[in-house]
Amino acid sequence: MSDAPRDPVHGSYHAFYGVVRTFCGVPLVSSRADVAAADAVVIGAPFDEGVSYRPGTRFGPQAVRTAEDINVTGDRPSMHAGIDPLKELNIVDWGDIDVVASDLPRSHALLAEAAGAALATDTVPVVIGGDHSLSHAMLQAMHEQFGADGYSVIHFDTHADTGVPEDGEPPHGTPFRAAIERGHLKGSNIFQIGLRGTWPGPELFQWMREQGMQWATMDEVMDRGITDVVREAIHHARAAAPKTYLTVDIDVLDPAYAPGTGTPEPGGLTTRELLRSVRSVTSELDVAAFDLVEVSPPYDHAAITAMAGHRVLLEGLNGMALRRTGRDSRHEKP
Amino acid sequence: MSDAPRDPVHGSYHAFYGVVRTFCGVPLVSSRADVAAADAVVIGAPFDEGVSYRPGTRFGPQAVRTAEDINVTGDRPSMHAGIDPLKELNIVDWGDIDVVASDLPRSHALLAEAAGAALATDTVPVVIGGDHSLSHAMLQAMHEQFGADGYSVIHFDTHADTGVPEDGEPPHGTPFRAAIERGHLKGSNIFQIGLRGTWPGPELFQWMREQGMQWATMDEVMDRGITDVVREAIHHARAAAPKTYLTVDIDVLDPAYAPGTGTPEPGGLTTRELLRSVRSVTSELDVAAFDLVEVSPPYDHAAITAMAGHRVLLEGLNGMALRRTGRDSRHEKP
Amino acid sequence: MSDAPRDPVHGSYHAFYGVVRTFCGVPLVSSRADVAAADAVVIGAPFDEGVSYRPGTRFGPQAVRTAEDINVTGDRPSMHAGIDPLKELNIVDWGDIDVVASDLPRSHALLAEAAGAALATDTVPVVIGGDHSLSHAMLQAMHEQFGADGYSVIHFDTHADTGVPEDGEPPHGTPFRAAIERGHLKGSNIFQIGLRGTWPGPELFQWMREQGMQWATMDEVMDRGITDVVREAIHHARAAAPKTYLTVDIDVLDPAYAPGTGTPEPGGLTTRELLRSVRSVTSELDVAAFDLVEVSPPYDHAAITAMAGHRVLLEGLNGMALRRTGRDSRHEKP
Amino acid sequence: MSDAPRDPVHGSYHAFYGVVRTFCGVPLVSSRADVAAADAVVIGAPFDEGVSYRPGTRFGPQAVRTAEDINVTGDRPSMHAGIDPLKELNIVDWGDIDVVASDLPRSHALLAEAAGAALATDTVPVVIGGDHSLSHAMLQAMHEQFGADGYSVIHFDTHADTGVPEDGEPPHGTPFRAAIERGHLKGSNIFQIGLRGTWPGPELFQWMREQGMQWATMDEVMDRGITDVVREAIHHARAAAPKTYLTVDIDVLDPAYAPGTGTPEPGGLTTRELLRSVRSVTSELDVAAFDLVEVSPPYDHAAITAMAGHRVLLEGLNGMALRRTGRDSRHEKP
Amino acid sequence: MSDAPRDPVHGSYHAFYGVVRTFCGVPLVSSRADVAAADAVVIGAPFDEGVSYRPGTRFGPQAVRTAEDINVTGDRPSMHAGIDPLKELNIVDWGDIDVVASDLPRSHALLAEAAGAALATDTVPVVIGGDHSLSHAMLQAMHEQFGADGYSVIHFDTHADTGVPEDGEPPHGTPFRAAIERGHLKGSNIFQIGLRGTWPGPELFQWMREQGMQWATMDEVMDRGITDVVREAIHHARAAAPKTYLTVDIDVLDPAYAPGTGTPEPGGLTTRELLRSVRSVTSELDVAAFDLVEVSPPYDHAAITAMAGHRVLLEGLNGMALRRTGRDSRHEKP
Amino acid sequence: MSDAPRDPVHGSYHAFYGVVRTFCGVPLVSSRADVAAADAVVIGAPFDEGVSYRPGTRFGPQAVRTAEDINVTGDRPSMHAGIDPLKELNIVDWGDIDVVASDLPRSHALLAEAAGAALATDTVPVVIGGDHSLSHAMLQAMHEQFGADGYSVIHFDTHADTGVPEDGEPPHGTPFRAAIERGHLKGSNIFQIGLRGTWPGPELFQWMREQGMQWATMDEVMDRGITDVVREAIHHARAAAPKTYLTVDIDVLDPAYAPGTGTPEPGGLTTRELLRSVRSVTSELDVAAFDLVEVSPPYDHAAITAMAGHRVLLEGLNGMALRRTGRDSRHEKP
Repeated sequence: MSDAPRDPVHGSYHAFYGVVRTFCGVPLVSSRADVAAADAVVIGAPFDEGVSYRPGTRFGPQAVRTAEDINVTGDRPSMHAGIDPLKELNIVDWGDIDVVASDLPRSHALLAEAAGAALATDTVPVVIGGDHSLSHAMLQAMHEQFGADGYSVIHFDTHADTGVPEDGEPPHGTPFRAAIERGHLKGSNIFQIGLRGTWPGPELFQWMREQGMQWATMDEVMDRGITDVVREAIHHARAAAPKTYLTVDIDVLDPAYAPGTGTPEPGGLTTRELLRSVRSVTSELDVAAFDLVEVSPPYDHAAITAMAGHRVLLEGLNGMALRRTGRDSRHEKP
Repeated sequence: MSDAPRDPVHGSYHAFYGVVRTFCGVPLVSSRADVAAADAVVIGAPFDEGVSYRPGTRFGPQAVRTAEDINVTGDRPSMHAGIDPLKELNIVDWGDIDVVASDLPRSHALLAEAAGAALATDTVPVVIGGDHSLSHAMLQAMHEQFGADGYSVIHFDTHADTGVPEDGEPPHGTPFRAAIERGHLKGSNIFQIGLRGTWPGPELFQWMREQGMQWATMDEVMDRGITDVVREAIHHARAAAPKTYLTVDIDVLDPAYAPGTGTPEPGGLTTRELLRSVRSVTSELDVAAFDLVEVSPPYDHAAITAMAGHRVLLEGLNGMALRRTGRDSRHEKP
Repeated sequence: MSDAPRDPVHGSYHAFYGVVRTFCGVPLVSSRADVAAADAVVIGAPFDEGVSYRPGTRFGPQAVRTAEDINVTGDRPSMHAGIDPLKELNIVDWGDIDVVASDLPRSHALLAEAAGAALATDTVPVVIGGDHSLSHAMLQAMHEQFGADGYSVIHFDTHADTGVPEDGEPPHGTPFRAAIERGHLKGSNIFQIGLRGTWPGPELFQWMREQGMQWATMDEVMDRGITDVVREAIHHARAAAPKTYLTVDIDVLDPAYAPGTGTPEPGGLTTRELLRSVRSVTSELDVAAFDLVEVSPPYDHAAITAMAGHRVLLEGLNGMALRRTGRDSRHEKP
Repeated sequence: MSDAPRDPVHGSYHAFYGVVRTFCGVPLVSSRADVAAADAVVIGAPFDEGVSYRPGTRFGPQAVRTAEDINVTGDRPSMHAGIDPLKELNIVDWGDIDVVASDLPRSHALLAEAAGAALATDTVPVVIGGDHSLSHAMLQAMHEQFGADGYSVIHFDTHADTGVPEDGEPPHGTPFRAAIERGHLKGSNIFQIGLRGTWPGPELFQWMREQGMQWATMDEVMDRGITDVVREAIHHARAAAPKTYLTVDIDVLDPAYAPGTGTPEPGGLTTRELLRSVRSVTSELDVAAFDLVEVSPPYDHAAITAMAGHRVLLEGLNGMALRRTGRDSRHEKP
Repeated sequence: MSDAPRDPVHGSYHAFYGVVRTFCGVPLVSSRADVAAADAVVIGAPFDEGVSYRPGTRFGPQAVRTAEDINVTGDRPSMHAGIDPLKELNIVDWGDIDVVASDLPRSHALLAEAAGAALATDTVPVVIGGDHSLSHAMLQAMHEQFGADGYSVIHFDTHADTGVPEDGEPPHGTPFRAAIERGHLKGSNIFQIGLRGTWPGPELFQWMREQGMQWATMDEVMDRGITDVVREAIHHARAAAPKTYLTVDIDVLDPAYAPGTGTPEPGGLTTRELLRSVRSVTSELDVAAFDLVEVSPPYDHAAITAMAGHRVLLEGLNGMALRRTGRDSRHEKP
Repeated sequence: MSDAPRDPVHGSYHAFYGVVRTFCGVPLVSSRADVAAADAVVIGAPFDEGVSYRPGTRFGPQAVRTAEDINVTGDRPSMHAGIDPLKELNIVDWGDIDVVASDLPRSHALLAEAAGAALATDTVPVVIGGDHSLSHAMLQAMHEQFGADGYSVIHFDTHADTGVPEDGEPPHGTPFRAAIERGHLKGSNIFQIGLRGTWPGPELFQWMREQGMQWATMDEVMDRGITDVVREAIHHARAAAPKTYLTVDIDVLDPAYAPGTGTPEPGGLTTRELLRSVRSVTSELDVAAFDLVEVSPPYDHAAITAMAGHRVLLEGLNGMALRRTGRDSRHEKP
């Protein structure tokens, strides 16, 4: 409660102390009008009832928001992008949706409504999960706003999340199939990057082919390089539809970089590969919705996964700021 | 951003999600008038530059505030005390003082000013440390408000914190001696509980005796029982002065109960012993200032130390609520 | 695959290596007839969708079963009880119920069916949770078998778990109220031990009183001693009904003893208090069903909570063995 | 104990719950005939008495077997290799050898016998360590079956493990020298990949050169790329002998990827480099024995090392499946 | 390399920094004469090959020596005992015996020689384990020096460690039986405190009775109180022989107090119970040898077990100092 | 206290046991003459009062010195460099400077004096931090010895550490600006590698440009490769001045490789990139002073950060040994 201008009310000058912990210290919304006026709204989705293996991602929004070591200065200039999203964009924080533990349908409905409210006013919902079942809500909201022809999906993940919904598959592994089957999403509008491991199997891959889905496994990333793969994904998305939904499952990273997640799979991306990729996508495409899911704090010693997740969000915002200002990415040079 | 009345703006219905994390969800102050109107004000003191051994207590206020698993319901009824401090008292949260890392004198000065502002309006500062050097600031504020004759100290701790200030002693081990030597505190007004280990040595104990200080080592606690010792301390404090400063170093607990602290010493109190003791003190004495110090999150696996610290504060408030309402403690019976 | 007689097939001689990990190495059931022939059947209930705060107890059954450092020798003699439950009782392991992540009703139904099958043949279901919402299933099965007049409940817990089911309360906090309201359980047949903290509040306690529920808070445990409290609980249960359902939430222990749990509350029992209490209950009452819930491995550094849970189960079986053989408890003396 | 066909007896449908935890859920052997009929047999070697620094790898077999998040579906299709080893190969699990703690010679003898039994029937022993001293047993068994001229060794490791056995060197650092000196292994048949750090020194390297050993340090891996190095190793092994023993010490990975190991050395391989390398070796050479050693759970926060070890084994089996079916590796493409 | 007198060479003024880390900063021995001149010599025994379950105690000596937060001031005054063992006794540190990993007989032989050298000059060996198999060496040395009639044993432990040596029992569970059978120790001279759990079983207890061994289980400790039990043990030892060997297995503590140990068993002593007990033993009996075993750092989050172990040693030395000076224990009073 | 020649006094033969823990077992200095005679002197700087975020690096020197698994054999041959710095160079260990907790100016003064004493005799101070504020002392000492024109700086770090000293900036973020402003360092003599994240912002970068500072962000490292960037830095330094100060902040590594640090930033170097870079710098330039800072043990599970830090120092010494002997780097080949 210093009288200094920088932090008039809520406590400490430092973001990592104090009691108000919005993403990067942006304002909390106090009305729907605040959301409508914003370029982007950060929304927490603290649930993990859809997880098949290690739970804990209900604490993901809190962990990601607090995974930062910098002062509340009102800026976050990127030396790599040469831009400051907090200055170029009007970004606000909604807080978390009002979950009730063990009532996943309620959580999905609240998220769909919140994301839909943002989309309706051309505000990008930037959602912090929570488990990947939240894409059920996001895809519903995207469909309602843009129609199935109106948007593509770029999806970083270890898993394709195309499990058969009615087959006892936990919901964090099914959103993309469910949306296709409901007609909410065109299969040929999806591009997935980072697939590896033992799931899906041949039958699901065959189904994915029949839908026209596109993807690059980690083997392909290793052969071609991440830059080339991402370039193809952007090209594909641009051709498919005017809008894009970008969804990043933190388990696309190797467990060395992201131990704190629900279903880790060895052999993944490095953080620096992912950060550049996300920035490329948001700077080159009209990303209407963006989320970061599956950060699971109980397994996240020293919080390195939450930090990586925070930077994924910030890089995405850097790209958006470049696109909206029409400026080129340009890193700080001597 | 639900439209429901309970949580109109700041996000989730649950205290353990969302972005505003005041102590027990009490209101953040927005002006000095808010402080003046309150019965108690929670103040975070996030620094650890005064620590001699394991640092980390700078993250104590954040960890203690978030160490709770209960909803923001506006109540915290105690089944043991039969009272709800959030309903009986007007409690607010100041946030954290505006520290600058490595500038300990600045932090002390800001804390002394904040605590002094509260004391001046008969509002109890309830401070979450931070290292125990914060008692330098607290004792200065108590002295300014009440004079050396006007207050006693009840001090739960492993260590007497009576090191010689000018002898290269880290400041978290010196506040009580420093205050006595400056005339800010009467030695005979102090009662310490839980001392053990190898410090202080005989010379310091001799000096303490010469000041008229009172204490009970853990050996004495084991021989007489904690209830009897606390009864004596309360009796002594009541006789000494009208007001009391209650300061609880979490390391008074055994390291099994409080691994997350800077200078753990095996052989201490159990949490249930400490909780009852703190409630007794605040219900039977006029506690004008109260703090909880030395919770160190980096060493606090599963956050059990932070949780214990949170409950120490809440039990203290339970006792204050009993005293201010004039009611008897009475636990819920069948 | 040694040819030695001790461990003919499943691998290592040591329980803590090898691939078959039943509770204490008892046989896996291969048919319903195996269950019917047994005195007790261990059932794993690996779910945590009912948790309000820290999830992870879905890994509880696995962690509790493997929390032992002793050989597969076919015996577990208790030096305190002077009996070996593995020799006196026919104990088998059902494995885990076939959960599907995020489908809690299915898990409850499967557990109710499994427990009911055991009860129907006078086999004690010994359930390893999982979250405490499993008591919904257990109480349903008890009611079906014995009727509401036919059984009492002894319940060790920090929380009364009498939340209003229809009020957005996560299901691990509601089973006892739900069962009373459905007529599955008589309120006056319940005795709860270890309640503390801030929940329930006065209204819920009043409702509990109106049902005739009995309980002892931790304050009462401290005042009277655990032995006296447990003696009263046994007396009450014996008077209420012929059969007893014993349910132990590991969070009745202080977080120092049980950091790995979903909703820890400082100020609880010590492990040695709990172990003796559980043995007393099962040796003096006809315990028809028994469970141990809320062990949460992600927060359980060094697995000390899982170990405590394992010993709670074993002590319960020690008591059952004493009762069924009609022998007195008698510890090994020089 | 569901009556459903998928999981008739041993408990839960999910591999990560339940009480039988074989590698990938393959059948436990019940007789030597089962081993003889199999293509590969997984054998646990739970000992660590041969470790020079951090012990704990005695818990390696258990940790590696349980380091998986997928259902017991009877398949593990590889999207990278385009094959499913559980369908193409007959794989069984022996359990663990019957170790007695602190009796390392006994453990080695049991492992040599078990591996020898497998080799005698053309079944590949797939051993999960345990410390690298297990190669003493593996090399003995390889020599007995194939003679020193009959097999090569491909060895991924930070350390050459060519310490002088008689010089007080802990046995996990000596197996390859011991075998050469006993005439069980031709030095020129060995190719080591990933050497780095300060051991061996020049004298040992000189001795290695004199034996005709081949190796690539991490510096060479960085200069040439892992693909080129592995290609040379395969070429060398194919020219040397008809059979190959593939041994992977998990410490060949950088400690970021494998913190849970006994003698970590910074500067190693990434997991994705290792996985592709292992698959190349087993698909292009006739690997008669295969092991994965030195996973040490006590240091393995979030189990990421155990997961990497599990995937190393599975990738090795993927390669074997390709070779035995004569199919080409072919990853899933859109 | 300050020129200040206090710490002329070895680095920092603080024990917890710097490069020489003897126990409490006592001098390192530089010759056998130093040992002969001392009252007590601290000896590290860094091995764990004798452990049956969790290894890691090889790092015990290092962890215990560094588990202190106090300056190298040359004193360690006890406020409970009113004495300073560093001033009253001549204590030196031998360093660690020169173990070779996996060669347990060598380690035992070196320890027996070192302890024997100390005993021969009436210097108390104060050994930091290492696993409890080190008692094989200690009992051999005691027997050689005093004969089987010349000493008693007071043994704090969860386990009786009377396993049959020839029966595949890991050596940390056998030393007391082995010594009795070799005639190195009279069974009736042993008193064990803290036994609990499932081992030994009735047959071993019967064998123990036949030897005349004395013990108190945890149940008995709970019934009679630790003070009374220890009084009986001291009385028994005094009657049995002139000298005493005091051996403390840290697992006598409850796992809450000592998570970092090899075979934890819930339901044990608290640290404050153990500290007073050890001081009583060494102040009232002529303790000729003393050890603290089974501290296992990999499982010791925040190092609380190592700290407890350090204080056990220091309390033992406090008692010795009282006895050798003939002074009464007397804690610091106001 | 073996009588064997290898380890006459200080305890065990193994560096990772025993009580004297100098860096790589080199001798402790006993006089200033020892320093003067040495090629390099390791100095511990155990403080962290200058840290802005996570403290703990006060335990860095201890952790780095003990982060090794190899015997005290008197050698550390590098298989990559083909040289042994312990044989080619006279390296000694000073121990730690005599810090007093919370007195940062005192610590800086002591370090400046120690480093200055080394520089004065052409002995390279090799400092283990401690937080990066220690560069204040190092730059002061470099300036005093060589003048601002006499040395360049190569600086591996996430952060430029050019914060404005007078603006409440914690001192670990300001040393390079402070030195430039005091005329102790020429801005154009600095080359920084690894910058990333959100600090500094455009104004600071502009100031840096005006000073002629050189740097390469992580984006540039990714585009050009680390080898090319380091080559440019060496070229620049060689042209600037005859001597070089090499300072490595461990947070230049990605948090996967260095979780144990104060201000981690995702997206950094891999350890193997850093190790080769450091060796290149010390082998090609006349490095007069060298430090490794910001290793923070409380966050360093399994000590992988400390190990990486140890190897950074050793690689630096490898390069120095190559340079001083005039030999070429040459790794061990078959």
